[in-house]
Amino acid sequence: MKPELAAVKALAFDVFGTVVDWRGSIAREVRTLAKDQGLRVNAAKFSDAWRAGYRPAMNRVASGELPWTKIDDLHRIILDEVLARFKITALTEAEKTHLNFAWHRLKPWPDAVRGLKRLKKRFTIATLSNGNVALLNNMAKHAGLPWDLILSAEIFHHYKPAPEAYLGAADILGLKPGEVMMVAAHKDDLRHAAQQGLKTALVLRPLEYGKGKHPDLSPEPAFDINARDFNDLADQLGT
Amino acid sequence: MKPELAAVKALAFDVFGTVVDWRGSIAREVRTLAKDQGLRVNAAKFSDAWRAGYRPAMNRVASGELPWTKIDDLHRIILDEVLARFKITALTEAEKTHLNFAWHRLKPWPDAVRGLKRLKKRFTIATLSNGNVALLNNMAKHAGLPWDLILSAEIFHHYKPAPEAYLGAADILGLKPGEVMMVAAHKDDLRHAAQQGLKTALVLRPLEYGKGKHPDLSPEPAFDINARDFNDLADQLGT
Repeated sequence: MKPELAAVKALAFDVFGTVVDWRGSIAREVRTLAKDQGLRVNAAKFSDAWRAGYRPAMNRVASGELPWTKIDDLHRIILDEVLARFKITALTEAEKTHLNFAWHRLKPWPDAVRGLKRLKKRFTIATLSNGNVALLNNMAKHAGLPWDLILSAEIFHHYKPAPEAYLGAADILGLKPGEVMMVAAHKDDLRHAAQQGLKTALVLRPLEYGKGKHPDLSPEPAFDINARDFNDLADQLGT
Repeated sequence: MKPELAAVKALAFDVFGTVVDWRGSIAREVRTLAKDQGLRVNAAKFSDAWRAGYRPAMNRVASGELPWTKIDDLHRIILDEVLARFKITALTEAEKTHLNFAWHRLKPWPDAVRGLKRLKKRFTIATLSNGNVALLNNMAKHAGLPWDLILSAEIFHHYKPAPEAYLGAADILGLKPGEVMMVAAHKDDLRHAAQQGLKTALVLRPLEYGKGKHPDLSPEPAFDINARDFNDLADQLGT
């Protein structure tokens, strides 16, 4: 392990895309629903449209246009728009609620559970996600994600990349920012964490946006660690 | 299981006294310290004096005399008073910090870890403690307490028995109050939880205040469950 990382006591994980495969999971649920209902839907495009509404919706909260609104409720606002756009009009309220909670049932990447168990032996492992606490807890129960604790923008009432989310996580852990390492598949999340003094680990998730998409996953020396997956991260952290 | 408990999805646990033996754990650390330092201290009385400052300190926060102050910092204020009263003047700052963090190293009652593991199979198990998040996380890491998530008065900025703590826990879990069961060894905690609509389970901890002390642990039909320990609670909840 790099000597400057000896102070790290906790790892804070981005979740959507970093720990779980949101696109594949949502598309699977949409495909099942479409089959049950006899609908024709491009499930991958539906997933992408739903996800595309995510950052704009959080921006409406960050700008003050909306009061604090948790992700479950933002997901539902976006879902209603996407259903209209895809001309899906026959779902009952219960079916829409169930579909909205597909985000509570996202499946982890193949290395995630084993990697987290290894990392947990040496570090506090926490979520630091924009997902709300109930979503993250239900996901953990479904998928067997062994978090020590669930931290969320919901606790700090600030969505990443607001400084309050990163600094709030360090504070509530009783740690200095430099004792916390942000782990994410997204460079912007890591850059914002680094600006607040957190350590950073990039984990490559080349399939997050589907086959044929090429997110920018080139290693960057500015990050403390560049890892292929959670097992590689555990190797590089000596656990 | 009683049919009216079928809706319960999460158990929220009081921690000090209910999950861990604060008095025996603190006394052990004080005894070790006294031996190392060549001091004569009644370790049990020291523990009781420290704990006796706890509710008054939280009341200073609740009344607005102090701004929001986490338990680690309240514990330290009380510790400084207790050290003065016991005429212990030779501790270094590092020794006082270490002693203050004895609350992060409290030992669970013998049935706690096994009982929690059983309960976790069927329910979300969360802390709902006035202890701060870092304290509860460190305690869980030390003692192997398998929480799904750590909830604390620190998240809601209201100490129990404020309604905001009980209702905040249900809200952040995405549940109705009646879907959450408060588990505690203290009747007042349960009565306040019940006033907010939570279900209640009393767990008997006859040794919390030491041998020869007799806390009021008579069963009460007003509580949904009266249990001998966490294994009995798991039995009564059918898990």
